[in-house]
Amino acid sequence: MAQEDVKLLGTLGSPFVCRVQIALKLKGVEYEFVAQDLQNKSEELLKYNPVHKKVPVLVHNEKPINESLVIVEYIDEAWKGKSILPTDPYQRALARFWAKFIDDKVFLAVWKSVFTIDENERETNIKEVHEAFQFLEDELKGKFFGGEEFGFVDIAAVNIAFWVPMLQEIAGLQLLTNENFPKLYKWSQEFLSKPTIKECLPPRDPIFGIFKGRYESLLASAK
Amino acid sequence: MAQEDVKLLGTLGSPFVCRVQIALKLKGVEYEFVAQDLQNKSEELLKYNPVHKKVPVLVHNEKPINESLVIVEYIDEAWKGKSILPTDPYQRALARFWAKFIDDKVFLAVWKSVFTIDENERETNIKEVHEAFQFLEDELKGKFFGGEEFGFVDIAAVNIAFWVPMLQEIAGLQLLTNENFPKLYKWSQEFLSKPTIKECLPPRDPIFGIFKGRYESLLASAK
Repeated sequence: MAQEDVKLLGTLGSPFVCRVQIALKLKGVEYEFVAQDLQNKSEELLKYNPVHKKVPVLVHNEKPINESLVIVEYIDEAWKGKSILPTDPYQRALARFWAKFIDDKVFLAVWKSVFTIDENERETNIKEVHEAFQFLEDELKGKFFGGEEFGFVDIAAVNIAFWVPMLQEIAGLQLLTNENFPKLYKWSQEFLSKPTIKECLPPRDPIFGIFKGRYESLLASAK
Repeated sequence: MAQEDVKLLGTLGSPFVCRVQIALKLKGVEYEFVAQDLQNKSEELLKYNPVHKKVPVLVHNEKPINESLVIVEYIDEAWKGKSILPTDPYQRALARFWAKFIDDKVFLAVWKSVFTIDENERETNIKEVHEAFQFLEDELKGKFFGGEEFGFVDIAAVNIAFWVPMLQEIAGLQLLTNENFPKLYKWSQEFLSKPTIKECLPPRDPIFGIFKGRYESLLASAK
């Protein structure tokens, strides 16, 4: 393409935004990061994502794309370079299935196993996280979900590698450890050690601080 | 492919299964329909969809694919013939976005606006359905979501065309009418009149009867 204007509307610390950053980095796409304040949504965000009013939004030559997994597939199709999804239709279907599984079964369950006061609800959610992780543990055949190289499912799972360890530390939970899910744990270490991934991750300390603050407020409110 | 063994594990009356039937019909794929009893799940279903234990499951040469939209994309990629998704990356992203929107914002809200006893909850859900339909109304630029021919979003929206009119009749609601969403209503009529779609829809009367029975049981239980 002759002219490229690529903007990413995002927030620091969102695993959904991070997925898009990894995909752009993998393809070597230059882009402008436009930080959003979700407490005070910008005209730009409302214009480019009128349906969900959420980040990430990728704006490519003035055309907006929403929903992180939709954006990652778009990046894979719109730019040449390293493929993110496999080429075989069956492997592509599996990749989409597991990425959707992570969205449907992991995110909310992790969140609710940390940010909840009710002990029974917490236990239910921890159990759900463990069940989901067991499926992922069984699915990991090689070094990465994508095989020898990381791909669509690995990128979708960035929250498991980077965010889950922080959240479990804050709440004193055992969601993902080397003892309970050794393959998934090893995957997370391999994945996080990749230079491309390191460059896309937000700085740990401020994100940890924000979540810890939120967790402590929740505890305080329950007293 | 030299040998083709295609099975669809499904139930009569599921809009998710119907999506897959439409995609297979569009590609001219011959398949065996293996009816499932979800009250008494078969070995085959548990083997081929151990994660969700739900229909539809497409089994292509012994390889299972789950999740209706994932299956429809798989069918589009695995068989030649009429394309289901557009070819342009941006149009593909939009199609995936709207199909996901229908899954996330329409299904549950429609269900809960019918099968609920609490009047406030019903109102909230009707409002959600109307908001979602307004987005779809605004998105309809041509005869179909796919343009002059129906495509991925139209197939995803089969529940809106066929199931919503039944459900609103049973519960006496005005979810989709010519008055409140004229473009979407016209779309539903055009879509249902297509021979390919007609051949894939379940017979209306038994499905209507099942839903009506369920609705009346709910009303009776509330007295």
